[in-house]
Formats: sequence, structure tokens, C-alpha cells
Amino acid sequence: MLEAHLIAELTKIVGPENITTSRQDMICYGYDATQMEFLPDAVLHPANAFEVSEVLKLANLRRFPVFPRGAGSGFTGGSLPKGGGVVLVTTRMNRILRIDQENLIAEVEPGVVTEQFQLAVEKLGFFYPPDPASLKFSTLGGNVAENAGGPRCVKYGVTRDFVMGLEVVLPTGEIIRTGGETYKAVVGYDLTRLLCGSEGTLGVITKIIFKILPFPDAKKTMLTIFDSIDGAAKAVSTIIGNKIIPTTLEFMDYATLQCVERRFNLGIPAEGRAVLLIEVDGDRDLIEKQAAMIHDLIKPLGLVQFRAARDAAESEELWRVRRLVSPSLRDINPTKYNEDVVVPRSKVPEIIRTIEKIQQKYDIPIVNFGHAGDGNIHVNIMVDKEVPGMDEKAHEAIREVFQAALDLNGTMSGEHGVGLSKAPYIELELSPQQIGAMKAIKAALDPNNILNPGKMFPWKGTPDHAA
Amino acid sequence: MLEAHLIAELTKIVGPENITTSRQDMICYGYDATQMEFLPDAVLHPANAFEVSEVLKLANLRRFPVFPRGAGSGFTGGSLPKGGGVVLVTTRMNRILRIDQENLIAEVEPGVVTEQFQLAVEKLGFFYPPDPASLKFSTLGGNVAENAGGPRCVKYGVTRDFVMGLEVVLPTGEIIRTGGETYKAVVGYDLTRLLCGSEGTLGVITKIIFKILPFPDAKKTMLTIFDSIDGAAKAVSTIIGNKIIPTTLEFMDYATLQCVERRFNLGIPAEGRAVLLIEVDGDRDLIEKQAAMIHDLIKPLGLVQFRAARDAAESEELWRVRRLVSPSLRDINPTKYNEDVVVPRSKVPEIIRTIEKIQQKYDIPIVNFGHAGDGNIHVNIMVDKEVPGMDEKAHEAIREVFQAALDLNGTMSGEHGVGLSKAPYIELELSPQQIGAMKAIKAALDPNNILNPGKMFPWKGTPDHAA
Repeated sequence: MLEAHLIAELTKIVGPENITTSRQDMICYGYDATQMEFLPDAVLHPANAFEVSEVLKLANLRRFPVFPRGAGSGFTGGSLPKGGGVVLVTTRMNRILRIDQENLIAEVEPGVVTEQFQLAVEKLGFFYPPDPASLKFSTLGGNVAENAGGPRCVKYGVTRDFVMGLEVVLPTGEIIRTGGETYKAVVGYDLTRLLCGSEGTLGVITKIIFKILPFPDAKKTMLTIFDSIDGAAKAVSTIIGNKIIPTTLEFMDYATLQCVERRFNLGIPAEGRAVLLIEVDGDRDLIEKQAAMIHDLIKPLGLVQFRAARDAAESEELWRVRRLVSPSLRDINPTKYNEDVVVPRSKVPEIIRTIEKIQQKYDIPIVNFGHAGDGNIHVNIMVDKEVPGMDEKAHEAIREVFQAALDLNGTMSGEHGVGLSKAPYIELELSPQQIGAMKAIKAALDPNNILNPGKMFPWKGTPDHAA
Repeated sequence: MLEAHLIAELTKIVGPENITTSRQDMICYGYDATQMEFLPDAVLHPANAFEVSEVLKLANLRRFPVFPRGAGSGFTGGSLPKGGGVVLVTTRMNRILRIDQENLIAEVEPGVVTEQFQLAVEKLGFFYPPDPASLKFSTLGGNVAENAGGPRCVKYGVTRDFVMGLEVVLPTGEIIRTGGETYKAVVGYDLTRLLCGSEGTLGVITKIIFKILPFPDAKKTMLTIFDSIDGAAKAVSTIIGNKIIPTTLEFMDYATLQCVERRFNLGIPAEGRAVLLIEVDGDRDLIEKQAAMIHDLIKPLGLVQFRAARDAAESEELWRVRRLVSPSLRDINPTKYNEDVVVPRSKVPEIIRTIEKIQQKYDIPIVNFGHAGDGNIHVNIMVDKEVPGMDEKAHEAIREVFQAALDLNGTMSGEHGVGLSKAPYIELELSPQQIGAMKAIKAALDPNNILNPGKMFPWKGTPDHAA
């Protein structure tokens, strides 16, 4: 519990209308998409880097933990105040500061919602490609802190590839700039990209300079259904092997297909075992040529359906299949553990087959879909917590899924990060020496372990936090 | 001086044929492209990460500095053994370990020469775009350590954008892997990109996993000459503003043009004040369309010559103008200080005009060319050291050039890094807080300041190295 005099000092920093300690507010800021819940002692809404800096200086002086939070849409509990302390919400810092059309850069505050930013640049003819599923509510600060991905990353890269510079408040309260307005910049260490994906443990992001692109002329969406996983996977490597890098290569397995079909009756052919939703974008003539090439290339691979959208409305219709996945999953079981392993693209059929075996072993429904173009599979373990023992079995299954991805030279997470929920597994992926180097960096920048403690690494014992 | 027993211990690690202390070898490994010279005490050629690790463990135990070195083609003294110690040369680790055509990745050792790697992947139909000017002799390990760039980066990105994973020996001797074989990977801090551009101060790279691309179908080269700098700069933003991202947008100013023309008589029109060498690549039809569009777009901007290559031979002929720049510069003065400032693309005319003023103020010839697409200008200050006072004036001019780039929201270096030669200026660009964070990371990973000491930061006093 934070003592009253600390609440008073925090109130002085952010103003009385930007701090709350009421129980209902604590509940609102103590959960995220994992559905875990930990109540903070206070929630702050600072206005700028200066206020964030003052909060962090006080936190170092008085030794209380600070948990930065955007929209709380994370999938690993990365923003949750486990152990109590102060939640620092960035959503008041929500201005798009400038869009520099000549240099193709934009500067924003961290609380801007991803989609709002995309729409703002699109209105001017530009493009910000990263498209995490949560883009309608996730914030750009959170996207940078987690290095968010999305379907379009196979062609355009992840959030990291668009971050040119940051304003960051270090855990000890110093306000620094990293990177800048030029894409080429090699003076000093690349703190920008160290911060990217550091899950709020190394600094609070208060400004972001993004690279933006010209908006593509046109796009072409294709819904393709194969009679086997291998056919769909082979399609991915065949397309890329033929020098076409699609914007998206979204994959759905048989279990996903069945789920969507049962609920929505889309008329998916009975022999369909895997879907690839393919989109290409760019020059209008080129994408028509590419679509034709793609059709020719994948025809021999067990293609049972090929539908190409002729306009935006038809494209939306094809994307509907993908969008209906999440709502239909809950028909299976109420709780979804959404893991996001990655394997080298060619290993997708192998990981899917291994996951099928894990599913049989533990007798738990698992549904797989995701970004086949970069081998990033969302493995959804569907659990009914009312069934005794099912949750425990699910966690054993998750560990086996992680291990399977690692055995194929993959990773436990391509988009969601580690946070709280994957911290117990991190030693499966990282060696003690790797973790040692990372913890040394954390300790160097956050000697009192103030900022988002307990995340990412399996911390032995409780961090020393005396408020 | 390293004591004899240390030489004996080092000899045990790498074998007698892979260590030398002879004076001529010390000279060979004590210089780089800066023409500075510092003699080491010994030069080692380790075979693998294990030997590198043993060397670094010994260095920590006995406290002697270790300077990693690839081909020594750096422009800032980054590999030079200032103060003496051991030079650790990576060139024996020169195998291309695998090229995984299905997953578009390649694993190499750090001593592979950049061009050799490019040719090896090209033979299989793939593409490794980063193309620093030194690519015929620079090594990939050095490219990663310096985050090397080149003309093609405007479209494809810098070395960092192609590094997926590393094997690194930390300064204290631990061998770790960073990143991996998947492009999306967010478990733990991004050590891969922290290492990228860290100039050999945070680890010795012993393996690299690169992303590779399909080789573009075709390319089209255009030599365009404008009657003003502003016309050429406007051409850059007009082309990009019209959604064409060329592979290269190489720029040469009037001084450069005059230099080349005086020496080689290429028939450059008298009214020419700036050259843009433009190349587009990709689909064969698309690039023809783009070339025509480019011609239309830039015609009103003071275009005095437009030559488009019809085949590879003509393309080579056009590139010749660019390639003749370096050999013709020495006609002006024998010593070249090659700085590589970057400004936001739209500020290129302004920085060129400011540099003209600096040139007049100090009465020193300055020739500018470089990568206009990303605002990266190579500013060549041509000095005759025989002329009393000229070298001193040059250094004052360099400081003003740096400051001018920073005043335009640019950076002192887009490709070359800081090393020794820019360390005295780093406080112009980075705040004490930024430098503090960077030094904290350095100290966390290299507590005894063993690895490449004295680089990047202005170290007060002499590092404590007692052999």
C-alpha cells in the first residue's frame, strides 16, 4: 500500500483530476487481455514527459514500483501491477504532433490509438502498415513497447521497422531522445531498438517518430482453400520463391475452418483442410499480374477453392472469414489461451502436426491460425475452467507447444512478448548467459527495479519494494 | 606492452601460427581507412567463438584491451588499438555456413567479405542489398558492428534490417545467441539490434543470420543532370511523393561534377549543377513504367540531361560517373576527410548551401555527394597537410558541418559511426543523459572496459589497463 503522503506527492505532480485510488478504478486498470487481475494502489494519468519523470524520480526515492500502461490490450500481462504500486497510463498523451509529408515521418504521443494514426496518415495518402489485431484500441506506445506485429508484417516489417526515434523517460527519471528524423543514424548505441519490445521495463515512451510510406495504389485479396496443410504451406514458399512478397498470407487450419463454418455457414468446401488468405498490394497492373501468377503457382498444390476479390466490397467479404474466427472460437470453450509461436516458414506443417499430437495427448481443443508468411502461428488452446484439471493440462500443453517451436528453431513469441504469462517459460528459449546480459542491462538502467518489475524474467524472490 | 607470459597464454589459445607480434604485422593491423595508426602489442586470428571467448576471459583476468577487427576498412578508427593491446582479427572465420532457400535466410561467419556473400546468394537467385562502398573488401562482421549502409538502403534498408540473429562473445567471455531464424521474435530484449552498430564495444560477433530477398527481376538506371541543387533535391521528393521508391538516388554536387569532368571529360553539360543517378528495380514492366513516370515528373525541375540505360552495359557506363568520383578527388588535395552527415531528405539543399558557406569561410575545398534518397551526404573535406594551418582549419570546418546537420534535425553519421575520429564531437549530438545511458550499458556488459576501449564516447582519463 502506498502511504498517504506519497499519494499527496503524486497528486502534486499530475494534479488531483489525474490520479485515482478508488476501488472501481483500480479494477479497471488492473486487468488486460489475459484476464489476469492485480490491483494497483493508484492510477496516474500524466500529461507529458516531465510529469512522468517526476513520478519516476519520486518512485526511485521512495522505492515504489511503476507500471506503464497504454490500452491494456496486451496478451501477456505486460502492463499488470502484480504486487501493487502505481499504474501510469499514457492515454492522455494522445496527440499526433506532426505528419511531415516531404520526409515521410510522423511524430506522435504514445497514447494515440493505432487505427486513429493509420486513418490520419491515410487521409493524406500515406501508410503505416503495422496492424496488430487490437489496432482499434491498442496504443502506439504499447505497440512500440511490445514491438507489435500483424498480418501485413510479412511484406512491410514489424513496428520496430517503423520506429525512427523516441522520447523516453528512463527508469531513473532522465528524459532522453533516441534516434531521430533520419533513417540512417549510427551515432551511439541503438537505444531506439533496445526500447522497442522491452515491454515497458527500460523506459516510458513519451514521443515516437515513425517512418510512414506512400499508400499503395491498389490491393487484391484472394481466398484460397487447400485440401491439406502441406498444400497451403507449400503455397506460401512457392509464392515467395517466385519473388512475390504478398502483403498478407493469413493461414487457418482445419479446426479453425470447422469452427467458422459451424457457426456462420460460409459454404466452405467439405474437402477444405486449410485456408490461405492472400493479399498483394502496389501498382495496379502489377498486382493483377501477380494474382494471376499466384493462381497458376498454387493450382497444383491441392487447391480446392480460389476466389479473387474484384473490388473493395468483395475484399471485405473474403476477410470476413478471417474476422469471424475469434467470435466463433468461444463456441468451443469459454477460455482461450492465445499463444503466438513462430517457426521458420518451411516448418509450419511440422509445427501444426506436432500441435495436433499435443492436442490428442492432452485432449484439449487447439485451433491454429495466423501469419503463415512469417511462420507466426496463433495457437489457441480452448479451455473450460469448470472442468476439473483442464486448466492444469492446458498449461502443460502450452509448455509442449513452446518446446516444439523451439525444437524447430523458432521462438515462443512473435508478437505478444513475455510479460507475466511467459516469464516462467523464458528459460526454455534463452540461456542463462542471455538472460544474464539482459538483466545486466535492466539493472544498469533501472538500479532500483522500479519500472514494470517482475516482467519478462523469472525474478527469484520478490523485488525489494518498500513504499 | 603485454608481458611474455600473456603472449604465451594467448598462443596456447589460438595456436602459434595464429598469433604474431612482429613489427611489420603490428603496422599492418594498426591502421584503417582513416589513415590513423596505432600499434598493437599482438595480433590474433582466432578460429571460432570458443577461442574468442578464451581470449576475452584471459583479458578480463589480466586486464588487457582487445580490439576486434574485420578488414580494417572503417572510416572512423573504430578498429584501431589506440593505447596498445591485442587486435583480434575475425578474417579466419570466413565461411558461408548455409543458405536456406526456403526460409530466405543465410548464416555466415563474420570474416566473409560482403561482396563474396552477395555473389554467393545471387548465384542462387537471391539478394543481399546492403552495399557499403567498401564491399569488395569489408567483412560482414564489420558491416554489422558498424551498421553499414550504401546506395541501395533508400529502398531496402541498412545492414540492421537484414540481421535476424547473432552468435556473440560478450566482453566477459560468455558465448550467447541473440535473435534467431524467424523475423518476428519478441522474447527478451533485442540484443541483436543493440549489437548492430555498437562498433565492437559490446561483443565480438562470431556468427550472423541474415535475411535475404529474392533477386529483383530487372533494374533500370538513369543518369539525370539538373541546373540546380534545388532541382535535384526537388526531384528526390517528387519521385518518392509519387510512390516510387527507387533502389538508389545517388547525388553529386557541382564541385564533384567539375572534378570528374576535369579529369575524365565525360561531356557533362556546362549548365549542369547537380547529378542524380537513379535506379529502380523489380518487375520488368513496372520499372519501365516507373522510368517513364520519373522522366515526366522531373522534366520541369531544371533537367538538363536524362539518359536511361537500355541494358546492363549502358547501366555500367552511367554508374561510371559515380565510380570516378573518388579517384578524381585526389586531384584537389591529397588528404580527404570523408564525413557522412544525414539530414531529413527535404533539407538536402539547405545543408549543401550551408556547407558552401563553411567552405568559403575556411577556404578549403569541400565536395559533396552521396545518398540523397535518405539525406545521407558524404562531405569530403580535401586537405593538403603540407599547407600550414590547413589541417586545423579543416577540423574547425568539420565541427561546423556536424553542427549544421544537427541544426537541421540530422545526425553526424549515417554510415561510418563514431569510433575514434567522431568521439570528440559526440556531445554535439547526444545529451549527457543519453551518453549516461549508453555508458551504463557498456559498463554493465563490459565491467572491466576490455573490449574496444576508448571508442564512441569521450572517455575522461585513460582507461585503467594494466597488462
